[in-house]
Amino acid sequence: MNQVETRGVLQSLFNPRNITIIGATADTSKWGNIIPGNIVGGGYKGRIYLVNPKNDFIHGIKVFRSVREIEDDLDLVVLTIPAAKAEAAVAECGERGCKAMIIIAGGFSEADAQGAENEKRVVEIARRYGIRVVGPNTMGIYSAPLSLSALMPPVRPKPGYISFASQSGNLGTQMLGWGSHRNIGFSRFVCIGNESDLRFKDYLDYFRHDDQTRVILLYVEGFKDPRSFMEVAVEAAAEKPIVMYKAGGTQAGRAAAASHSAALAGTQEIYEGFMQQIGVIRAETTEEMLDFADALIKMPLPQGNRVGILTWGGGWGVVTADLCERQGMEVAPLSAHSERELGKLLPPYWSKGNPVDLVGLFDLDAHMRCLEIMVADDAYDGIISLGSINANLWVKEMARREWSGMTDEEKSAVLERINSMSGVFIKKVADLVEQHGKPIVTVGMPIQDENIQDIPGQERLCMYSQPESAVRVMSMLWRRAAFLRGIA
Amino acid sequence: MNQVETRGVLQSLFNPRNITIIGATADTSKWGNIIPGNIVGGGYKGRIYLVNPKNDFIHGIKVFRSVREIEDDLDLVVLTIPAAKAEAAVAECGERGCKAMIIIAGGFSEADAQGAENEKRVVEIARRYGIRVVGPNTMGIYSAPLSLSALMPPVRPKPGYISFASQSGNLGTQMLGWGSHRNIGFSRFVCIGNESDLRFKDYLDYFRHDDQTRVILLYVEGFKDPRSFMEVAVEAAAEKPIVMYKAGGTQAGRAAAASHSAALAGTQEIYEGFMQQIGVIRAETTEEMLDFADALIKMPLPQGNRVGILTWGGGWGVVTADLCERQGMEVAPLSAHSERELGKLLPPYWSKGNPVDLVGLFDLDAHMRCLEIMVADDAYDGIISLGSINANLWVKEMARREWSGMTDEEKSAVLERINSMSGVFIKKVADLVEQHGKPIVTVGMPIQDENIQDIPGQERLCMYSQPESAVRVMSMLWRRAAFLRGIA
Repeated sequence: MNQVETRGVLQSLFNPRNITIIGATADTSKWGNIIPGNIVGGGYKGRIYLVNPKNDFIHGIKVFRSVREIEDDLDLVVLTIPAAKAEAAVAECGERGCKAMIIIAGGFSEADAQGAENEKRVVEIARRYGIRVVGPNTMGIYSAPLSLSALMPPVRPKPGYISFASQSGNLGTQMLGWGSHRNIGFSRFVCIGNESDLRFKDYLDYFRHDDQTRVILLYVEGFKDPRSFMEVAVEAAAEKPIVMYKAGGTQAGRAAAASHSAALAGTQEIYEGFMQQIGVIRAETTEEMLDFADALIKMPLPQGNRVGILTWGGGWGVVTADLCERQGMEVAPLSAHSERELGKLLPPYWSKGNPVDLVGLFDLDAHMRCLEIMVADDAYDGIISLGSINANLWVKEMARREWSGMTDEEKSAVLERINSMSGVFIKKVADLVEQHGKPIVTVGMPIQDENIQDIPGQERLCMYSQPESAVRVMSMLWRRAAFLRGIA
Repeated sequence: MNQVETRGVLQSLFNPRNITIIGATADTSKWGNIIPGNIVGGGYKGRIYLVNPKNDFIHGIKVFRSVREIEDDLDLVVLTIPAAKAEAAVAECGERGCKAMIIIAGGFSEADAQGAENEKRVVEIARRYGIRVVGPNTMGIYSAPLSLSALMPPVRPKPGYISFASQSGNLGTQMLGWGSHRNIGFSRFVCIGNESDLRFKDYLDYFRHDDQTRVILLYVEGFKDPRSFMEVAVEAAAEKPIVMYKAGGTQAGRAAAASHSAALAGTQEIYEGFMQQIGVIRAETTEEMLDFADALIKMPLPQGNRVGILTWGGGWGVVTADLCERQGMEVAPLSAHSERELGKLLPPYWSKGNPVDLVGLFDLDAHMRCLEIMVADDAYDGIISLGSINANLWVKEMARREWSGMTDEEKSAVLERINSMSGVFIKKVADLVEQHGKPIVTVGMPIQDENIQDIPGQERLCMYSQPESAVRVMSMLWRRAAFLRGIA
């Protein structure tokens, strides 16, 4: 099956009109109960068929004794039966026109030689019927457009435009959960398992052509066929950003990977320089996988490496300037025009240079005006704004000290205004990004009980609690822009 | 004044029997109102004297027209009047026996040549009377034993045993706020300002001898007198851990620092190798300042670099093994005894090696038993445990599926047990640390609405949301142990 045909089958995998779960069971401790439970609970928009020779109803759905009883062409089948029974089930599904299959069970090639033999036979039968296989040894898939959560863990991913192929189910689904926690949405997710049939390159090729995917995310321990992956990746990376975390780079990591995903981690080290050359973006930490993928969706790319820094406190300006220079970015001087305009808003002892220190200015309107001046300045390709979001804790405290003469109504009005300020600031930042086509990356320092995730509207922004994250994101955006210019 | 005498004065600074605020005012937008407000609100245990020629009562406290009216020896004076008026005030305070003074105002040496001249004169007068000066251009100090919050921002630090000298007020007080957010406590804090008189070395020497200080934290842009600092640091680092974040290492950072704290950042780069040699621990990120200082208080030091990894999911094991090896630690093999004992608890297809993958085991009692086996194993000097905390979200979901036959009371009992599980796990971990004298660093992945900060008892543990933080902390603890053995 060539890449175009494979893409067609993956359409059935990620957009199935119907799903059949073979091995569905009333036993709530089994995947055959948990996975259909997650599919139903996730609100899947297609038809669900459950198959089990014994049960009548599971999750309120009628159970078929065999796939032969289902009067429909089977799009996607999820196999939740043990490894030893897979062979027969695959053949039966083949007879019913099944196109794509997810084999959940472990105990195949990642376990021992006998498992490997079994895996090979299962794939041979699948091939005979033209069925493409995800796994075995997988935690399943997610697909936002159909609200399809064919997953083991009870995560509720947020719909979005990141598509993610992961060689670890646990790490992968944890990322989906973190994403929800941080308002970062996913379009598709697949835990690739043992890659007995479908491989990284196939998912990558599908994501490249999928109009519901804007950024591609990969967690990789090792490639089974690095050369084919590279061939697909060269084309894909030129079209959509690919963010990759590569694990198993050390001897200890390789040993751990061998027992985990049966991956030959590390034999691919020679390809890593090549990855960078072809524009694959490397995440250095697990947190960066989300930071980078999210920023590539939310922010325009900067035209160059000149960064303007707006800071509420000099120390953070020093730290951020250091970080920018270490990441190869230029903390470029203010234009004379900006210096004049900022001077009208700031106290006489302001820094008069970049970073622009807001020196304890409590007026958030003035913060916004300063940001406006910076982003409009041709001297900058992007802006990092530190500390303005959540500055309202200070402002609230200040206000409380001033209201001795106020009525209760006036007090409430003041408090309400202050509480909405972070939201107003966030909206302003998002509007400025759109208006000027430049990235603005913000650092909203959480103080005590306040989490930046809880501020309304923050899902439109790239907001971090540490300047380190903001600077690395800005640098990544700039490198992506430079790569695209290089191949244009 | 020699170092021993200076230490005596710093005793007055951090443990003053009384505080006098000169420039106290009813104007709530001024530091002369905000700072005494924070002192009163913070619950300071000594006497407070406010001085202002005009007001009768501020914050409910009687105001003296002049320091001459106060019938008490002045311990600590906070000057909240403008730079131009400082000179006269210092002389008056000298006459009243004042030992330590905090000069809040900016507009001194960080501003211009005239300010520098003024700063020099103020310090000369202070010296004449034996007064030691913090600042000018400072956000103040905090001292937990006296509940003393002589600070600008409305942060409420949590009492603890980290003492912190910061060259940035904003960054420093932000760290105090983050500390509260993460249950990390501080003993003393000082924003050193322009270091016109008291310098890093003086605070460092005081912290070294202070029985309320167990870890010393420094945010440094540049040293005015690197040689003297080194002399003090050599002795101090051998006794108590010193964690330092050094900013201003790049040209951009130096330029920003010059306009901020008047520090000659960067001229000290030659001393950095020396810092490491004398055992000063370098924090690479701002977040690491807290991670490291906190871990040095909570955890015993490991005897060596052999790490056992317990993981709930293979991918995290691979990532963590990689990180350990990159940090110079050994992911050492399991002993035969441990392998046998773990085999009794885990399913037959478990990893049979380090990292130990709990392979989706839902029984948290078994997790704890596995951890017990690992920490007791002589093969390991420390343990990193991933994913067990907050595993309860999974377990809760599983339980909900099983209770069709249960009464409401039985259901509540199950839920209550599950909700308390992270707490039980945390208590067990803390007990094991104490019992075996080995560090256990945990990664409790937050899922959706759950924050690891909210779990009861977590303040006894080192708990991170990312494996990267856990590994860097473990490696730092090991390097500290190796340093101490090297000088023993």
